[in-house]
Amino acid sequence: MAGTFYLVGVGPGDPDLITLKGVKILCNVDMVAFPQKPGGASLALKIASPHLHKNIEQMPIILPMEKSRQPAKDAYDQAALKIGEQLQAGISIAYLCEGDPFFYGSAMYLFSRLSHKYNVQIVPGISSLNAAAAAINRPLAARNEILKILPATLDDKTLLRELKNTEAAAIIKVGRHFDRVRKIITQSGHEKGAMVIEFASQPSQNIRAVSAVDEQELSYFSIILCYHGQEPWGQELWGEKDISQ
Amino acid sequence: MAGTFYLVGVGPGDPDLITLKGVKILCNVDMVAFPQKPGGASLALKIASPHLHKNIEQMPIILPMEKSRQPAKDAYDQAALKIGEQLQAGISIAYLCEGDPFFYGSAMYLFSRLSHKYNVQIVPGISSLNAAAAAINRPLAARNEILKILPATLDDKTLLRELKNTEAAAIIKVGRHFDRVRKIITQSGHEKGAMVIEFASQPSQNIRAVSAVDEQELSYFSIILCYHGQEPWGQELWGEKDISQ
Repeated sequence: MAGTFYLVGVGPGDPDLITLKGVKILCNVDMVAFPQKPGGASLALKIASPHLHKNIEQMPIILPMEKSRQPAKDAYDQAALKIGEQLQAGISIAYLCEGDPFFYGSAMYLFSRLSHKYNVQIVPGISSLNAAAAAINRPLAARNEILKILPATLDDKTLLRELKNTEAAAIIKVGRHFDRVRKIITQSGHEKGAMVIEFASQPSQNIRAVSAVDEQELSYFSIILCYHGQEPWGQELWGEKDISQ
Repeated sequence: MAGTFYLVGVGPGDPDLITLKGVKILCNVDMVAFPQKPGGASLALKIASPHLHKNIEQMPIILPMEKSRQPAKDAYDQAALKIGEQLQAGISIAYLCEGDPFFYGSAMYLFSRLSHKYNVQIVPGISSLNAAAAAINRPLAARNEILKILPATLDDKTLLRELKNTEAAAIIKVGRHFDRVRKIITQSGHEKGAMVIEFASQPSQNIRAVSAVDEQELSYFSIILCYHGQEPWGQELWGEKDISQ
């Protein structure tokens, strides 16, 4: 019988922010696979490692970091073949996903290649979005408010239109788009209270107001949370609090 | 010394979808508080109960389910007073929150009343959004796509505009708005592949295509996931799969 393939969300960084379900699966699978930068370490593996058997089999999936999609597609094709061979041999595998597997993750490219042939199970994880809100002690949205997730790679016109028409927004994958995005945030009226969160829940967690950030020192996986709705944390509450705590 | 107040996301329903951090806190606090409908049970307590000491002190917070905001405001005022008294006496309390405390939760109304006086800690949880995507085996969004969280209570014009301008959307709090929302989904071109998810990750989990739902039998906490982006799960993959599995 073929092994099961689990896509396990390991959460945003704090190893305790994985789910019980995730831990139970990590304790029972034969092998873990995980994304890894060429020549770099794997954050997903680092997050999961306190929960892994010391001698568990490891399959790093090296993912090229190029703008063109073809090299990544080739890498996923090859990875799916390798993973499929193991599953076929009855080996169960957990693929470690930063955050949540189905929230802008790359795990979906393995899912789409393997789910028609094998038993694939999704284990949701805490996304950086929820961890970022907890980090700045501010709700994402409430009641009848709209919340938009906007990749910073969107063009200026789209970003401005979408920010103008919302009470709450999370701008993701900010990195080298920061200066451009900050201008658009200001144009949209969202600058007040817009916060930049890097490495939410990790020891290197860093929280700053949008006005206090230099693009050069910003990491790719930073997130900006905007809120200008009518709830009290948009005004009194948030205005009173020391954001550095 | 005053006790700490924890807002603990207990996740969408499966007791194993709470985080390790949440479980550790539940094992160590002196008391749990939780929202409860008048005359009803508490879903948050039900989800957390496998992780609670048998004799832990319980403080139900009865929240009126009325359209007007004043009765709920009064209830939060009173609850904050009661919780504050306990914290002042050195008692640590975990408030159990369905899903994630800061994603359209009601816990924020306690946070805003207590965080300026007491040590309040947020423990993120898996939201129904992530659980719903896992339930239908379909990613929420990827790469440069926009994802919008749209409460069904929005007016027709706003809903239509926002749906037209996005690849992916989650419509929340659908319940009695379903028939109206379905029409708008169809107008926006999102009907194909729009899925209704009730009770994600719970034993009563129910997944249907939007076209197969009768509003009368739909629960308030249902969610509709829409996707018409360019990724393969929008077409080939999703078209092939049996959604009932």
